[in-house]
Amino acid sequence: MKLLRVGTAGTETPALLDADGVLRDLSGVVDDIDGTLLADDAALGRVRAAAEAGDLPALDATGLRVGPPIARIGKIVCIGLNYHDHARETGAEPPAEPVIFFKAADTVVGPYDTVLVPRKSVKTDWEVELAVVIGRTARYLSSVEEGLAHVAGYAVAHDVSEREFQIERGGTWDKGKNCETFNPLGPWLVTADEVPDPQSLSLKLWVNGELKQNGTTAEQIFPVGEVVRYVSQFMTLYPGDVINTGTPAGVAMGEPEPKPYLRAGDVVELEISGLGRQRQEFKDA
Amino acid sequence: MKLLRVGTAGTETPALLDADGVLRDLSGVVDDIDGTLLADDAALGRVRAAAEAGDLPALDATGLRVGPPIARIGKIVCIGLNYHDHARETGAEPPAEPVIFFKAADTVVGPYDTVLVPRKSVKTDWEVELAVVIGRTARYLSSVEEGLAHVAGYAVAHDVSEREFQIERGGTWDKGKNCETFNPLGPWLVTADEVPDPQSLSLKLWVNGELKQNGTTAEQIFPVGEVVRYVSQFMTLYPGDVINTGTPAGVAMGEPEPKPYLRAGDVVELEISGLGRQRQEFKDA
Repeated sequence: MKLLRVGTAGTETPALLDADGVLRDLSGVVDDIDGTLLADDAALGRVRAAAEAGDLPALDATGLRVGPPIARIGKIVCIGLNYHDHARETGAEPPAEPVIFFKAADTVVGPYDTVLVPRKSVKTDWEVELAVVIGRTARYLSSVEEGLAHVAGYAVAHDVSEREFQIERGGTWDKGKNCETFNPLGPWLVTADEVPDPQSLSLKLWVNGELKQNGTTAEQIFPVGEVVRYVSQFMTLYPGDVINTGTPAGVAMGEPEPKPYLRAGDVVELEISGLGRQRQEFKDA
Repeated sequence: MKLLRVGTAGTETPALLDADGVLRDLSGVVDDIDGTLLADDAALGRVRAAAEAGDLPALDATGLRVGPPIARIGKIVCIGLNYHDHARETGAEPPAEPVIFFKAADTVVGPYDTVLVPRKSVKTDWEVELAVVIGRTARYLSSVEEGLAHVAGYAVAHDVSEREFQIERGGTWDKGKNCETFNPLGPWLVTADEVPDPQSLSLKLWVNGELKQNGTTAEQIFPVGEVVRYVSQFMTLYPGDVINTGTPAGVAMGEPEPKPYLRAGDVVELEISGLGRQRQEFKDA
Protein backbone atom coordinates (compact mmCIF):
# COMPACT_ATOMS: atom_id res chain seq x y z
CA MET A 1 0.00 0.00 0.00
CA LYS A 2 0.99 3.59 -0.60
CA LEU A 3 -0.12 5.56 2.45
CA LEU A 4 0.01 9.33 2.60
CA ARG A 5 -1.37 12.36 4.42
CA VAL A 6 -2.92 15.28 2.56
CA GLY A 7 -4.12 18.74 3.53
CA THR A 8 -2.97 21.70 5.55
CA ALA A 9 0.13 21.23 7.70
CA GLY A 10 -0.87 19.95 11.12
CA THR A 11 -4.37 18.82 10.11
CA GLU A 12 -3.62 16.34 7.34
CA THR A 13 -6.11 13.63 6.35
CA PRO A 14 -4.93 10.01 6.00
CA ALA A 15 -5.15 8.75 2.44
CA LEU A 16 -4.16 5.89 0.17
CA LEU A 17 -2.97 5.97 -3.40
CA ASP A 18 -4.59 2.98 -5.08
CA ALA A 19 -3.24 0.77 -7.87
CA ASP A 20 -4.93 2.98 -10.47
CA GLY A 21 -3.29 6.13 -9.08
CA VAL A 22 -6.55 7.35 -7.51
CA LEU A 23 -6.28 9.11 -4.16
CA ARG A 24 -8.60 7.50 -1.57
CA ASP A 25 -9.80 8.93 1.72
CA LEU A 26 -8.80 6.80 4.74
CA SER A 27 -10.33 9.05 7.40
CA GLY A 28 -13.34 6.76 7.76
CA VAL A 29 -11.10 3.78 8.51
CA VAL A 30 -8.19 5.16 10.59
CA ASP A 31 -7.53 8.29 12.65
CA ASP A 32 -4.14 8.99 11.14
CA ILE A 33 -1.03 7.33 9.80
CA ASP A 34 1.32 7.07 12.75
CA GLY A 35 3.22 4.62 14.90
CA THR A 36 0.03 3.42 16.57
CA LEU A 37 -1.43 2.40 13.20
CA LEU A 38 1.81 0.87 11.94
CA ALA A 39 2.04 -1.35 15.03
CA ASP A 40 -1.59 -2.49 14.66
CA ASP A 41 -1.81 -5.38 12.19
CA ALA A 42 -5.61 -5.57 12.54
CA ALA A 43 -6.07 -1.89 11.67
CA LEU A 44 -3.67 -2.19 8.71
CA GLY A 45 -5.68 -5.24 7.63
CA ARG A 46 -8.88 -3.19 7.69
CA VAL A 47 -7.24 -0.54 5.50
CA ARG A 48 -6.10 -3.20 3.04
CA ALA A 49 -9.51 -4.88 2.98
CA ALA A 50 -11.34 -1.59 2.44
CA ALA A 51 -8.97 -0.71 -0.41
CA GLU A 52 -9.39 -4.10 -2.08
CA ALA A 53 -13.18 -4.00 -1.68
CA GLY A 54 -13.31 -0.58 -3.36
CA ASP A 55 -14.95 0.88 -0.24
CA LEU A 56 -12.77 3.98 0.05
CA PRO A 57 -14.15 7.27 -1.31
CA ALA A 58 -12.02 9.05 -3.90
CA LEU A 59 -10.40 12.35 -2.90
CA ASP A 60 -10.01 15.25 -5.32
CA ALA A 61 -6.24 15.69 -5.47
CA THR A 62 -6.44 19.05 -7.26
CA GLY A 63 -4.42 21.62 -5.39
CA LEU A 64 -4.15 19.38 -2.35
CA ARG A 65 -0.95 19.72 -0.33
CA VAL A 66 0.84 16.48 0.49
CA GLY A 67 2.20 16.33 4.03
CA PRO A 68 4.75 13.95 5.50
CA PRO A 69 3.31 10.41 5.35
CA ILE A 70 3.71 9.76 9.09
CA ALA A 71 2.35 11.82 11.97
CA ARG A 72 3.91 12.02 15.43
CA ILE A 73 7.31 10.70 14.42
CA GLY A 74 9.24 9.83 17.57
CA LYS A 75 12.87 10.12 16.59
CA ILE A 76 14.85 10.17 13.36
CA VAL A 77 18.05 8.16 13.57
CA CYS A 78 20.43 8.89 10.69
CA ILE A 79 23.21 6.71 9.35
CA GLY A 80 26.24 8.62 8.08
CA LEU A 81 28.64 7.57 5.32
CA ASN A 82 26.62 4.44 4.48
CA TYR A 83 27.41 4.30 0.75
CA HIS A 84 30.80 3.24 -0.55
CA ASP A 85 30.74 5.94 -3.27
CA HIS A 86 29.71 8.75 -0.86
CA ALA A 87 32.39 7.81 1.68
CA ARG A 88 34.96 8.06 -1.12
CA GLU A 89 33.77 11.49 -2.30
CA THR A 90 33.95 12.96 1.21
CA GLY A 91 37.47 11.58 1.67
CA ALA A 92 36.37 9.45 4.61
CA GLU A 93 37.31 5.83 5.22
CA PRO A 94 34.28 3.51 5.03
CA PRO A 95 33.19 3.21 8.66
CA ALA A 96 33.86 -0.06 10.50
CA GLU A 97 30.40 0.13 12.03
CA PRO A 98 27.42 2.40 11.32
CA VAL A 99 27.83 6.09 12.13
CA ILE A 100 24.75 7.39 13.96
CA PHE A 101 23.49 10.95 14.25
CA PHE A 102 20.06 12.46 14.87
CA LYS A 103 17.51 14.70 13.26
CA ALA A 104 14.64 16.04 15.37
CA ALA A 105 11.15 15.06 14.21
CA ASP A 106 10.24 18.77 14.04
CA THR A 107 12.48 19.14 10.96
CA VAL A 108 10.05 17.02 8.90
CA VAL A 109 7.97 18.72 6.19
CA GLY A 110 6.00 17.46 3.21
CA PRO A 111 7.69 16.38 -0.03
CA TYR A 112 6.76 19.55 -1.95
CA ASP A 113 7.04 22.06 0.92
CA THR A 114 9.49 24.94 0.86
CA VAL A 115 12.90 24.28 2.41
CA LEU A 116 14.62 27.16 4.19
CA VAL A 117 18.30 27.99 3.76
CA PRO A 118 19.35 28.89 7.33
CA ARG A 119 20.49 32.42 8.08
CA LYS A 120 24.27 32.79 7.66
CA SER A 121 24.39 29.46 5.82
CA VAL A 122 26.90 29.21 2.98
CA LYS A 123 27.04 25.41 2.68
CA THR A 124 23.49 24.07 2.48
CA ASP A 125 23.71 20.69 0.75
CA TRP A 126 21.36 17.98 -0.53
CA GLU A 127 21.18 14.25 0.27
CA VAL A 128 18.61 11.82 -1.15
CA GLU A 129 18.03 8.97 1.30
CA LEU A 130 15.97 5.84 1.76
CA ALA A 131 13.92 6.33 4.93
CA VAL A 132 12.95 3.24 6.89
CA VAL A 133 9.84 3.51 9.06
CA ILE A 134 9.70 1.26 12.12
CA GLY A 135 6.54 -0.78 12.70
CA ARG A 136 7.37 -2.83 15.80
CA THR A 137 9.37 -2.02 18.93
CA ALA A 138 12.96 -3.06 18.21
CA ARG A 139 15.27 -3.77 21.15
CA TYR A 140 18.49 -5.79 21.04
CA LEU A 141 17.57 -7.60 17.82
CA SER A 142 19.81 -10.54 17.00
CA SER A 143 19.77 -10.81 13.20
CA VAL A 144 19.43 -8.97 9.91
CA GLU A 145 16.18 -10.86 9.28
CA GLU A 146 14.78 -9.66 12.60
CA GLY A 147 15.83 -6.12 11.62
CA LEU A 148 13.83 -6.30 8.38
CA ALA A 149 10.84 -7.80 10.20
CA HIS A 150 10.56 -4.63 12.31
CA VAL A 151 10.23 -2.35 9.26
CA ALA A 152 6.72 -1.09 8.46
CA GLY A 153 7.67 0.55 5.19
CA TYR A 154 9.85 2.88 3.21
CA ALA A 155 9.77 6.48 2.00
CA VAL A 156 11.92 9.07 0.27
CA ALA A 157 13.75 11.39 2.68
CA HIS A 158 15.75 14.49 1.90
CA ASP A 159 18.46 14.78 4.57
CA VAL A 160 19.21 18.47 3.97
CA SER A 161 22.55 19.32 5.59
CA GLU A 162 24.50 22.49 6.34
CA ARG A 163 28.15 21.44 6.01
CA GLU A 164 29.74 24.36 7.84
CA PHE A 165 27.38 23.88 10.80
CA GLN A 166 27.90 20.10 10.59
CA ILE A 167 31.67 19.95 10.35
CA GLU A 168 33.35 23.28 11.11
CA ARG A 169 31.49 24.54 14.18
CA GLY A 170 32.62 22.02 16.80
CA GLY A 171 30.83 19.09 18.32
CA THR A 172 28.75 16.54 16.51
CA TRP A 173 27.10 16.55 13.11
CA ASP A 174 23.68 17.26 14.66
CA LYS A 175 24.37 21.02 14.50
CA GLY A 176 24.12 20.98 10.70
CA LYS A 177 21.26 18.51 10.40
CA ASN A 178 18.47 20.04 12.46
CA CYS A 179 17.68 23.37 10.85
CA GLU A 180 13.94 23.92 10.37
CA THR A 181 12.42 22.20 7.29
CA PHE A 182 15.57 20.09 6.83
CA ASN A 183 13.78 16.74 6.42
CA PRO A 184 11.22 16.59 3.58
CA LEU A 185 9.59 13.14 3.77
CA GLY A 186 7.28 11.35 1.35
CA PRO A 187 5.16 11.55 -0.72
CA TRP A 188 4.22 8.03 0.37
CA LEU A 189 4.92 5.45 2.98
CA VAL A 190 5.16 2.29 0.88
CA THR A 191 4.50 -0.74 3.04
CA ALA A 192 7.34 -3.25 3.29
CA ASP A 193 5.43 -6.01 1.47
CA GLU A 194 5.67 -3.90 -1.69
CA VAL A 195 9.45 -3.46 -1.36
CA PRO A 196 10.69 -7.05 -1.53
CA ASP A 197 14.36 -6.02 -1.85
CA PRO A 198 15.29 -2.70 -0.25
CA GLN A 199 18.86 -3.21 -1.50
CA SER A 200 17.96 -2.79 -5.19
CA LEU A 201 16.39 0.66 -5.23
CA SER A 202 17.69 3.43 -7.44
CA LEU A 203 18.03 6.91 -5.90
CA LYS A 204 18.24 10.07 -7.99
CA LEU A 205 18.45 13.76 -7.19
CA TRP A 206 18.42 16.78 -9.47
CA VAL A 207 19.30 20.41 -8.72
CA ASN A 208 17.65 22.88 -11.07
CA GLY A 209 17.08 20.02 -13.50
CA GLU A 210 20.65 18.74 -13.48
CA LEU A 211 21.15 15.15 -12.28
CA LYS A 212 23.49 15.26 -9.26
CA GLN A 213 22.98 11.95 -7.44
CA ASN A 214 22.36 8.69 -9.25
CA GLY A 215 22.90 5.79 -6.90
CA THR A 216 21.53 2.49 -5.75
CA THR A 217 20.92 1.01 -2.32
CA ALA A 218 23.06 -1.92 -3.55
CA GLU A 219 25.99 0.40 -2.65
CA GLN A 220 24.96 0.61 1.01
CA ILE A 221 27.80 -0.46 3.30
CA PHE A 222 25.29 -1.58 5.95
CA PRO A 223 22.00 -2.81 4.46
CA VAL A 224 18.62 -1.96 5.96
CA GLY A 225 18.18 -5.10 8.08
CA GLU A 226 21.66 -4.72 9.54
CA VAL A 227 21.11 -1.02 10.25
CA VAL A 228 17.93 -1.78 12.22
CA ARG A 229 19.63 -4.64 14.09
CA TYR A 230 22.66 -2.48 14.87
CA VAL A 231 20.76 0.60 16.03
CA SER A 232 18.62 -1.58 18.32
CA GLN A 233 21.77 -2.49 20.33
CA PHE A 234 22.16 1.15 21.40
CA MET A 235 18.62 2.45 21.65
CA THR A 236 15.07 1.18 21.48
CA LEU A 237 13.27 1.86 18.21
CA TYR A 238 9.53 2.44 18.49
CA PRO A 239 6.72 2.27 15.89
CA GLY A 240 6.74 5.55 14.00
CA ASP A 241 10.47 6.11 14.42
CA VAL A 242 12.37 6.74 11.19
CA ILE A 243 15.87 5.77 10.10
CA ASN A 244 17.47 7.77 7.29
CA THR A 245 19.86 5.20 5.88
CA GLY A 246 22.47 7.45 4.26
CA THR A 247 23.09 9.05 0.89
CA PRO A 248 24.95 7.92 -2.24
CA ALA A 249 27.66 9.98 -3.96
CA GLY A 250 26.95 13.28 -5.67
CA VAL A 251 26.48 15.88 -2.96
CA ALA A 252 27.70 19.47 -3.33
CA MET A 253 30.45 18.87 -0.74
CA GLY A 254 31.97 16.25 -3.07
CA GLU A 255 32.28 18.61 -6.06
CA PRO A 256 35.35 20.72 -6.92
CA GLU A 257 35.51 24.37 -5.76
CA PRO A 258 33.48 26.46 -6.02
CA LYS A 259 31.05 23.88 -4.64
CA PRO A 260 27.48 24.47 -5.78
CA TYR A 261 25.79 24.79 -2.39
CA LEU A 262 22.08 25.60 -2.38
CA ARG A 263 20.66 29.12 -2.34
CA ALA A 264 17.23 30.68 -2.36
CA GLY A 265 15.55 29.99 -5.68
CA ASP A 266 17.16 26.60 -6.25
CA VAL A 267 14.85 23.68 -6.94
CA VAL A 268 15.74 20.17 -5.80
CA GLU A 269 13.91 17.09 -7.07
CA LEU A 270 14.54 13.61 -5.78
CA GLU A 271 13.21 10.16 -6.46
CA ILE A 272 13.58 6.57 -5.31
CA SER A 273 12.28 3.77 -7.54
CA GLY A 274 8.79 2.79 -6.41
CA LEU A 275 8.70 5.32 -3.57
CA GLY A 276 7.80 8.46 -5.51
CA ARG A 277 9.29 11.83 -6.17
CA GLN A 278 9.83 15.05 -4.19
CA ARG A 279 10.32 18.63 -5.33
CA GLN A 280 11.36 21.53 -3.11
CA GLU A 281 12.00 25.16 -3.80
CA PHE A 282 14.58 26.71 -1.48
CA LYS A 283 13.99 30.09 0.17
CA ASP A 284 15.84 32.15 2.75
CA ALA A 285 14.93 31.59 6.41
CA MET B 1 5.46 27.11 40.85
CA LYS B 2 6.65 23.53 41.15
CA LEU B 3 4.78 21.54 38.52
CA LEU B 4 4.93 17.77 38.32
CA ARG B 5 3.17 14.71 36.96
CA VAL B 6 2.23 11.77 39.17
CA GLY B 7 0.87 8.28 38.56
CA THR B 8 1.48 5.33 36.28
CA ALA B 9 3.88 5.87 33.36
CA GLY B 10 1.95 7.12 30.35
CA THR B 11 -1.16 8.18 32.28
CA GLU B 12 0.28 10.68 34.76
CA THR B 13 -1.90 13.35 36.40
CA PRO B 14 -0.74 16.99 36.41
CA ALA B 15 0.00 18.26 39.88
CA LEU B 16 1.54 21.14 41.81
CA LEU B 17 3.66 21.09 44.94
CA ASP B 18 2.51 24.04 46.99
CA ALA B 19 4.53 26.29 49.30
CA ASP B 20 3.67 24.06 52.27
CA GLY B 21 4.92 20.94 50.47
CA VAL B 22 1.39 19.65 49.85
CA LEU B 23 0.75 17.90 46.55
CA ARG B 24 -2.22 19.45 44.71
CA ASP B 25 -4.27 17.99 41.86
CA LEU B 26 -4.16 20.13 38.70
CA SER B 27 -6.32 17.85 36.54
CA GLY B 28 -9.37 20.10 37.03
CA VAL B 29 -7.46 23.11 35.68
CA VAL B 30 -5.20 21.77 32.89
CA ASP B 31 -5.09 18.64 30.73
CA ASP B 32 -1.40 18.01 31.24
CA ILE B 33 1.93 19.74 31.69
CA ASP B 34 3.38 20.01 28.21
CA GLY B 35 4.57 22.50 25.63
CA THR B 36 1.04 23.64 24.91
CA LEU B 37 0.53 24.64 28.54
CA LEU B 38 3.96 26.23 28.88
CA ALA B 39 3.28 28.46 25.85
CA ASP B 40 -0.11 29.53 27.20
CA ASP B 41 0.28 32.41 29.64
CA ALA B 42 -3.45 32.52 30.34
CA ALA B 43 -3.58 28.85 31.29
CA LEU B 44 -0.48 29.19 33.48
CA GLY B 45 -2.16 32.20 35.07
CA ARG B 46 -5.22 30.10 35.90
CA VAL B 47 -3.00 27.49 37.56
CA ARG B 48 -1.29 30.17 39.59
CA ALA B 49 -4.56 31.80 40.60
CA ALA B 50 -6.11 28.48 41.62
CA ALA B 51 -3.03 27.64 43.70
CA GLU B 52 -3.03 31.03 45.43
CA ALA B 53 -6.79 30.86 46.09
CA GLY B 54 -6.38 27.44 47.72
CA ASP B 55 -8.79 25.96 45.18
CA LEU B 56 -6.72 22.90 44.30
CA PRO B 57 -7.63 19.60 45.98
CA ALA B 58 -4.83 17.86 47.88
CA LEU B 59 -3.50 14.57 46.49
CA ASP B 60 -2.40 11.71 48.69
CA ALA B 61 1.27 11.33 47.79
CA THR B 62 1.62 7.98 49.57
CA GLY B 63 3.11 5.43 47.19
CA LEU B 64 2.46 7.66 44.19
CA ARG B 65 5.01 7.37 41.39
CA VAL B 66 6.44 10.65 40.12
CA GLY B 67 6.76 10.81 36.33
CA PRO B 68 8.78 13.22 34.22
CA PRO B 69 7.37 16.74 34.78
CA ILE B 70 6.72 17.39 31.08
CA ALA B 71 4.66 15.30 28.67
CA ARG B 72 5.22 15.11 24.91
CA ILE B 73 8.74 16.49 24.95
CA GLY B 74 9.74 17.37 21.40
CA LYS B 75 13.49 17.16 21.34
CA ILE B 76 16.26 17.15 23.91
CA VAL B 77 19.26 19.22 22.85
CA CYS B 78 22.34 18.53 24.95
CA ILE B 79 25.36 20.75 25.48
CA GLY B 80 28.65 18.90 25.86
CA LEU B 81 31.69 19.99 27.87
CA ASN B 82 29.92 23.08 29.23
CA TYR B 83 31.71 23.26 32.61
CA HIS B 84 35.31 24.37 32.93
CA ASP B 85 36.04 21.69 35.55
CA HIS B 86 34.44 18.85 33.51
CA ALA B 87 36.31 19.82 30.33
CA ARG B 88 39.55 19.61 32.33
CA GLU B 89 38.79 16.17 33.78
CA THR B 90 38.03 14.69 30.34
CA GLY B 91 41.27 16.14 28.95
CA ALA B 92 39.36 18.24 26.42
CA GLU B 93 40.03 21.88 25.59
CA PRO B 94 37.13 24.15 26.62
CA PRO B 95 35.07 24.43 23.41
CA ALA B 96 35.15 27.71 21.47
CA GLU B 97 31.41 27.47 20.94
CA PRO B 98 28.79 25.14 22.44
CA VAL B 99 29.02 21.45 21.54
CA ILE B 100 25.58 20.10 20.62
CA PHE B 101 24.33 16.53 20.69
CA PHE B 102 20.90 14.96 21.02
CA LYS B 103 18.92 12.68 23.26
CA ALA B 104 15.62 11.28 22.02
CA ALA B 105 12.56 12.19 24.09
CA ASP B 106 11.80 8.48 24.50
CA THR B 107 14.81 8.15 26.85
CA VAL B 108 12.99 10.23 29.50
CA VAL B 109 11.77 8.52 32.66
CA GLY B 110 10.67 9.75 36.06
CA PRO B 111 13.16 10.86 38.72
CA TYR B 112 12.85 7.68 40.83
CA ASP B 113 12.38 5.17 37.99
CA THR B 114 14.81 2.33 37.37
CA VAL B 115 17.65 3.04 34.95
CA LEU B 116 18.86 0.18 32.76
CA VAL B 117 22.53 -0.58 32.16
CA PRO B 118 22.57 -1.47 28.43
CA ARG B 119 23.52 -4.99 27.38
CA LYS B 120 27.27 -5.29 26.75
CA SER B 121 27.85 -1.96 28.51
CA VAL B 122 31.02 -1.67 30.55
CA LYS B 123 31.17 2.13 30.81
CA THR B 124 27.79 3.43 31.98
CA ASP B 125 28.43 6.81 33.59
CA TRP B 126 26.47 9.48 35.46
CA GLU B 127 26.02 13.22 34.76
CA VAL B 128 23.89 15.60 36.83
CA GLU B 129 22.62 18.44 34.65
CA LEU B 130 20.45 21.53 34.78
CA ALA B 131 17.62 20.99 32.27
CA VAL B 132 16.10 24.07 30.67
CA VAL B 133 12.52 23.73 29.43
CA ILE B 134 11.50 25.98 26.54
CA GLY B 135 8.26 27.95 26.85
CA ARG B 136 8.20 30.01 23.65
CA THR B 137 9.27 29.23 20.11
CA ALA B 138 12.90 30.34 19.80
CA ARG B 139 14.30 31.06 16.35
CA TYR B 140 17.40 33.15 15.58
CA LEU B 141 17.37 34.94 18.92
CA SER B 142 19.69 37.92 19.12
CA SER B 143 20.68 38.21 22.78
CA VAL B 144 21.29 36.36 26.02
CA GLU B 145 18.31 38.22 27.52
CA GLU B 146 16.07 36.97 24.72
CA GLY B 147 17.41 33.48 25.36
CA LEU B 148 16.37 33.62 29.02
CA ALA B 149 12.97 35.07 28.10
CA HIS B 150 12.17 31.88 26.14
CA VAL B 151 12.73 29.60 29.16
CA ALA B 152 9.59 28.28 30.88
CA GLY B 153 11.43 26.66 33.75
CA TYR B 154 14.12 24.38 35.06
CA ALA B 155 14.44 20.79 36.22
CA VAL B 156 17.03 18.24 37.30
CA ALA B 157 18.17 15.94 34.48
CA HIS B 158 20.35 12.88 34.67
CA ASP B 159 22.23 12.62 31.37
CA VAL B 160 23.17 8.96 31.72
CA SER B 161 25.96 8.14 29.26
CA GLU B 162 27.68 5.01 27.97
CA ARG B 163 31.25 6.13 27.31
CA GLU B 164 32.32 3.24 25.10
CA PHE B 165 29.24 3.66 22.89
CA GLN B 166 29.73 7.46 22.96
CA ILE B 167 33.42 7.68 22.15
CA GLU B 168 34.89 4.37 20.96
CA ARG B 169 32.27 3.07 18.51
CA GLY B 170 32.60 5.60 15.68
CA GLY B 171 30.39 8.51 14.73
CA THR B 172 28.85 11.04 17.04
CA TRP B 173 28.21 10.99 20.76
CA ASP B 174 24.51 10.21 20.20
CA LYS B 175 25.28 6.46 20.17
CA GLY B 176 26.09 6.52 23.88
CA LYS B 177 23.39 8.92 24.97
CA ASN B 178 20.16 7.35 23.75
CA CYS B 179 19.90 4.00 25.51
CA GLU B 180 16.45 3.39 27.01
CA THR B 181 15.80 5.10 30.40
CA PHE B 182 18.92 7.26 29.98
CA ASN B 183 17.25 10.59 30.86
CA PRO B 184 15.56 10.70 34.28
CA LEU B 185 13.89 14.12 34.57
CA GLY B 186 12.31 15.91 37.51
CA PRO B 187 10.83 15.65 40.09
CA TRP B 188 9.56 19.14 39.31
CA LEU B 189 9.48 21.73 36.62
CA VAL B 190 10.23 24.89 38.59
CA THR B 191 8.95 27.91 36.68
CA ALA B 192 11.57 30.46 35.67
CA ASP B 193 10.17 33.19 37.95
CA GLU B 194 11.30 31.10 40.93
CA VAL B 195 14.86 30.72 39.58
CA PRO B 196 16.06 34.33 39.42
CA ASP B 197 19.68 33.37 38.72
CA PRO B 198 20.19 30.04 36.89
CA GLN B 199 23.97 30.65 37.14
CA SER B 200 24.11 30.21 40.92
CA LEU B 201 22.67 26.73 41.39
CA SER B 202 24.59 23.99 43.14
CA LEU B 203 24.55 20.51 41.57
CA LYS B 204 25.38 17.37 43.52
CA LEU B 205 25.43 13.68 42.68
CA TRP B 206 26.09 10.66 44.88
CA VAL B 207 26.78 7.05 43.91
CA ASN B 208 25.89 4.53 46.62
CA GLY B 209 25.94 7.41 49.09
CA GLU B 210 29.37 8.75 48.11
CA LEU B 211 29.45 12.34 46.82
CA LYS B 212 30.88 12.28 43.28
CA GLN B 213 29.83 15.57 41.67
CA ASN B 214 29.67 18.82 43.60
CA GLY B 215 29.49 21.73 41.20
CA THR B 216 27.80 24.99 40.48
CA THR B 217 26.25 26.46 37.35
CA ALA B 218 28.59 29.42 37.94
CA GLU B 219 31.20 27.16 36.28
CA GLN B 220 29.21 26.92 33.02
CA ILE B 221 31.30 28.03 30.05
CA PHE B 222 28.14 29.10 28.19
CA PRO B 223 25.37 30.29 30.54
CA VAL B 224 21.71 29.37 30.03
CA GLY B 225 20.66 32.49 28.12
CA GLU B 226 23.62 32.17 25.76
CA VAL B 227 22.96 28.46 25.22
CA VAL B 228 19.35 29.16 24.20
CA ARG B 229 20.41 32.03 21.92
CA TYR B 230 23.16 29.93 20.35
CA VAL B 231 21.07 26.81 19.74
CA SER B 232 18.34 28.96 18.12
CA GLN B 233 20.80 29.92 15.35
CA PHE B 234 20.95 26.28 14.20
CA MET B 235 17.49 24.93 14.93
CA THR B 236 14.11 26.13 16.07
CA LEU B 237 13.28 25.43 19.69
CA TYR B 238 9.62 24.78 20.47
CA PRO B 239 7.64 24.90 23.72
CA GLY B 240 8.22 21.63 25.53
CA ASP B 241 11.71 21.14 24.10
CA VAL B 242 14.42 20.54 26.69
CA ILE B 243 18.07 21.57 26.78
CA ASN B 244 20.41 19.60 29.04
CA THR B 245 23.04 22.22 29.76
CA GLY B 246 26.04 20.02 30.57
CA THR B 247 27.60 18.44 33.64
CA PRO B 248 30.24 19.61 36.14
CA ALA B 249 33.33 17.59 37.06
CA GLY B 250 33.17 14.30 38.89
CA VAL B 251 32.02 11.67 36.39
CA ALA B 252 33.38 8.11 36.39
CA MET B 253 35.29 8.75 33.17
CA GLY B 254 37.35 11.40 35.00
CA GLU B 255 38.50 9.05 37.78
CA PRO B 256 41.73 6.99 37.79
CA GLU B 257 41.61 3.36 36.61
CA PRO B 258 39.78 1.22 37.40
CA LYS B 259 37.04 3.76 36.73
CA PRO B 260 33.92 3.12 38.82
CA TYR B 261 31.36 2.76 36.03
CA LEU B 262 27.82 1.90 37.04
CA ARG B 263 26.51 -1.65 37.37
CA ALA B 264 23.23 -3.27 38.32
CA GLY B 265 22.51 -2.60 41.99
CA ASP B 266 24.16 0.82 42.10
CA VAL B 267 22.07 3.70 43.41
CA VAL B 268 22.56 7.23 42.08
CA GLU B 269 21.09 10.26 43.80
CA LEU B 270 21.29 13.77 42.39
CA GLU B 271 20.12 17.18 43.41
CA ILE B 272 20.11 20.78 42.23
CA SER B 273 19.41 23.57 44.72
CA GLY B 274 15.73 24.49 44.59
CA LEU B 275 14.91 21.94 41.90
CA GLY B 276 14.63 18.78 43.99
CA ARG B 277 16.31 15.44 44.22
CA GLN B 278 16.33 12.23 42.16
CA ARG B 279 17.19 8.66 43.11
CA GLN B 280 17.62 5.78 40.68
CA GLU B 281 18.49 2.16 41.17
CA PHE B 282 20.36 0.66 38.22
CA LYS B 283 19.42 -2.73 36.80
CA ASP B 284 20.53 -4.78 33.79
CA ALA B 285 18.63 -4.23 30.53
